Amino acid sequence: MFYNEYSKEKLQEELEGLYKEYNKIKESGISLDMSRGKPGPDQLDLSMDMLDVFNSESDLKASNGFDCRNYGVLDGIPEAKKMMADIMECNPENVIIGGNASLNLMYDAISRAYTHGIMGETPWCKLDKVKWLCPVPGYDRHFGITEHFGIEMINIPLKEDGPDMDMIEELVSKDASIKGIWCVPKYENPTGLSYSDEVVKRMAALKPAAKDFRIFWDNAYAIHHLYDEEEKQDTILNIIDECKKAGNEDMVYEFASTSKVTFPGSGIAAIASSVANVDEIKKRMSVQTIGFDKMNQLRHVKYFKNAEGVKKHMAKHAAKLRPKFEAVLKMLDAELDGYGIATWTKPNGGYFISFDVMEGCAKKVVNMCKEAGMVLTGAGAPFPYGIDPKDSNIRIAPSYPSPEELIDASKILIVCTKIAAIEKLLETK
Amino acid sequence: MFYNEYSKEKLQEELEGLYKEYNKIKESGISLDMSRGKPGPDQLDLSMDMLDVFNSESDLKASNGFDCRNYGVLDGIPEAKKMMADIMECNPENVIIGGNASLNLMYDAISRAYTHGIMGETPWCKLDKVKWLCPVPGYDRHFGITEHFGIEMINIPLKEDGPDMDMIEELVSKDASIKGIWCVPKYENPTGLSYSDEVVKRMAALKPAAKDFRIFWDNAYAIHHLYDEEEKQDTILNIIDECKKAGNEDMVYEFASTSKVTFPGSGIAAIASSVANVDEIKKRMSVQTIGFDKMNQLRHVKYFKNAEGVKKHMAKHAAKLRPKFEAVLKMLDAELDGYGIATWTKPNGGYFISFDVMEGCAKKVVNMCKEAGMVLTGAGAPFPYGIDPKDSNIRIAPSYPSPEELIDASKILIVCTKIAAIEKLLETK
Repeated sequence: MFYNEYSKEKLQEELEGLYKEYNKIKESGISLDMSRGKPGPDQLDLSMDMLDVFNSESDLKASNGFDCRNYGVLDGIPEAKKMMADIMECNPENVIIGGNASLNLMYDAISRAYTHGIMGETPWCKLDKVKWLCPVPGYDRHFGITEHFGIEMINIPLKEDGPDMDMIEELVSKDASIKGIWCVPKYENPTGLSYSDEVVKRMAALKPAAKDFRIFWDNAYAIHHLYDEEEKQDTILNIIDECKKAGNEDMVYEFASTSKVTFPGSGIAAIASSVANVDEIKKRMSVQTIGFDKMNQLRHVKYFKNAEGVKKHMAKHAAKLRPKFEAVLKMLDAELDGYGIATWTKPNGGYFISFDVMEGCAKKVVNMCKEAGMVLTGAGAPFPYGIDPKDSNIRIAPSYPSPEELIDASKILIVCTKIAAIEKLLETK
Repeated sequence: MFYNEYSKEKLQEELEGLYKEYNKIKESGISLDMSRGKPGPDQLDLSMDMLDVFNSESDLKASNGFDCRNYGVLDGIPEAKKMMADIMECNPENVIIGGNASLNLMYDAISRAYTHGIMGETPWCKLDKVKWLCPVPGYDRHFGITEHFGIEMINIPLKEDGPDMDMIEELVSKDASIKGIWCVPKYENPTGLSYSDEVVKRMAALKPAAKDFRIFWDNAYAIHHLYDEEEKQDTILNIIDECKKAGNEDMVYEFASTSKVTFPGSGIAAIASSVANVDEIKKRMSVQTIGFDKMNQLRHVKYFKNAEGVKKHMAKHAAKLRPKFEAVLKMLDAELDGYGIATWTKPNGGYFISFDVMEGCAKKVVNMCKEAGMVLTGAGAPFPYGIDPKDSNIRIAPSYPSPEELIDASKILIVCTKIAAIEKLLETK
C-alpha cells in the first residue's frame, strides 16, 4: 500500500517506529561514505601488477623508437593512442593522450574556447552570453567547469534513453549563444543508464545555430560494465562515426580515461575528435606543454598490451562492484518498493545509482543521513548551480564501502527516505 | 689580431681557407643536434633505479595515510610538498605540486589570470591591452605563452647580473597594463648566468602600478650546478622571502620541476607563492582537476628521501654535463678568442651557453650550420616574436650530444661564425 493511502494515524504510528529505528542508528556511531565515485581499495589492488612492468633494467622505448624518458611527443606515444582509440572506437589519428585526468582535458577545451575560440569563431570571453545544455541529473564537476567560466546552464531533462532530444534540437537550432552540451552517454553519472541509438543519431545530426557548438561526450564509463553477460552490457552508437555520417564531423569532443581502470589520478586520459579539431587542439596545446607523461603511457600499454587486455581487466572490477550495487538494490527493492515514495535506477554499469525521493525531500534525507553518520553526495549537486528544482534527486555511490557497509548504508537511506516522505504527507493530511 | 684589423686581402685569403674547411665538413655527412636542452641518454640512465621503488607489493600510502592510488589531494602529498619546498627554499604551505611540467603550470597561471583575473582585479581578457616584460635573450617557450594570449612583450636587456632593473622599475611603476615579467633567475636560459643579490632585492621591491603584476620566477635550474665546488656554484637570494620583506608577499609565482632531475615529461612540477596566492590558485584548480599524479609524487620522494637526496643526485648529472660544457668552451676559447667577432658566456650551471656573433650574422650562422648538418636553436628564438633586434644571439645546448660530437659541433659553429663575420666585414672594406 502506498504511504499516501495511509490514514493520518497510521502514518503517525509508522513515523514513531521509524524515528526509534533512526535514533538507534544515530546512537550506534556508524560512519559511512557514499558521496563520491571512488573505487574501493580492493579494486585498486587489481592493478598492482602494473607496478612490476618497469624496473631499472627496462627498455623505455616506444614502438616508434622514441625514448619515453625524455622530452617530446605532444599527443602521446603511438601504442597509447591506439589503445585509447580502440576503447573509444575511433582511429589513433583522432586521439590525443593527455595527462592524468579527462576532467582536466575538458576544462582545458573550454578554457581554450573561452580564450581563443574554436575554428576561427569569436573567443567566448568576447561574447556577451554563452549558454550550455546540461542533461540532469548529471555530473557535478562538469557543471562546475561551465559555471566557473560564467556560462549560463540550461537544464535538459534526462529520460530513460537519454536527454530530451526535442528540447535540445529546438534550443540549439535557434540560439547561437548555446555553445555546447555535457553528455555522459554510457552508464550516465548518476543514473547509470545509456543513450539509445536514436538519441545518439539525433545528437549527431543536430543543426546548431552556433558553428562552434561542441558536444562534450564524456565516455567515462565506456567499458565499465557490471555484468559479464553481453545481454546485460549496454552498448551505444559511436558518436564520432555518427557525426561524420551526419556531416557534423567537427561537432564532438569525446573524452575517456583509465582513472577507474588502473589508479584514479595516476592513469592516462584522452580526447578524441575529428582530425581538424585534433590539429587545432595540438597546435594550442603545444604552447601549454612539451608533452604529457609518456612513461605512464608506456606503463599502461605494457601492462594491458591492448584494448582487449583492458576489457578483460574490467571484468575483475565488475566482480568487485556487482555485489555492491546488488546489495543496495536488493535492500531498496525489499524495503522501499510499494510505498510510492521513491524510485531508483538499476544500472548495468558505471559508478552510480540515481535515487529519487518525494519532491522537496532530497535535502532533508541527505541531512538526516549525515546526522546518522552517512555522507551522501550533497542534494542538488547533480544539477547546475547545485539546485535541484524538485529537490528530489540523490546520487548513490556504492563503489567505496564494502557490501556489508552498504547494507547498513541502505538501511539508513531507507529509514530517512520514509521519515521525510511521511512528514511531507502529514503536512497535507 | 681582431678580424676588423685585417686587410681586405688577408680577410679574403682567410675566407677561402674557411670555405674549404666548411665544404669538407658538409661533405662528411655529419648530423648533430644542439637545438634543445634535452638531457642525454646517459643522464636518463642515472634515474633508472627510481623504477625499482615500487612493485606490486608496495605500500602506496602517503605520510598522512592517504592512499596515493585513489582520487584526491589537489595540491600534492605532504612529503612531495616538503621536498619541493626545500628545493625552492620555502615552506610546504607555499607549494602546490602540479602535473609533469612546470611550463603547464605557467601557462595555466596566465590562462587563469586571462579568464578570471588575479585577486579580484579585472580578467586580462577584458582589458584592451596587457603587456609583459621579457628579459632577453630568454626562454622561447615563455614568450610563446605570452604571445599566445596576445600579450604585448617588451624586451628588457639582460646584463651580467640579471635584467636591467632601472628600466624595469621605470616601466612597471608607470604602466598599469604591464602585468608580469618572465625571469629565469639562476643559470638563465640561455645565458647560464644568475641574478645578483641586488637584482633580486630590487625585483622584490618593485612598486608596480598594476596590483595584479606578478613576477613569473622560473627557477628551472635551482639545483642544476655544473661543479661540485661551492665556490663554483651560483646562489641567488630567495625571492619569496625578499618579496615578503619588501611588503610584496603576493607579487611572485615561483616554478620548479624535476624534469631535468629524473625524467623530462615524467617528473613532478611545482608552483610556490604566498599563502593567499596559493589559496586562490587551489580554489580555481579544483575546478580543473581532482588532483595530479600522487603515485609519481610518492615515487619521487621514496627515491630521493628528501631535497638533500635530490641535490646528491644532481652531482651525478653535473659529472655528465660538465665535460660537455667544457668541450664546447675549450674549443671556443682556443679558436675564437682574439678575433673580436663573438662573445660567449661561461656558466656554472644550467643547460645553455649564450653565444653572440657579430650583429646581423646569427641567422646566417645558424643556416650555415644547418646546411653542414648541425641543428641549432633557431636564431631569434630566444627573443619575443622570434625577433632578435641585433640578429646576433645563438643559443647553444650542449647537453644532448656526446663530448666528442660537441667538438665537431663546435668546429662547425666556429667556422660558420668566422665566415659570416668576414663576409660582413668585407661588405664595408
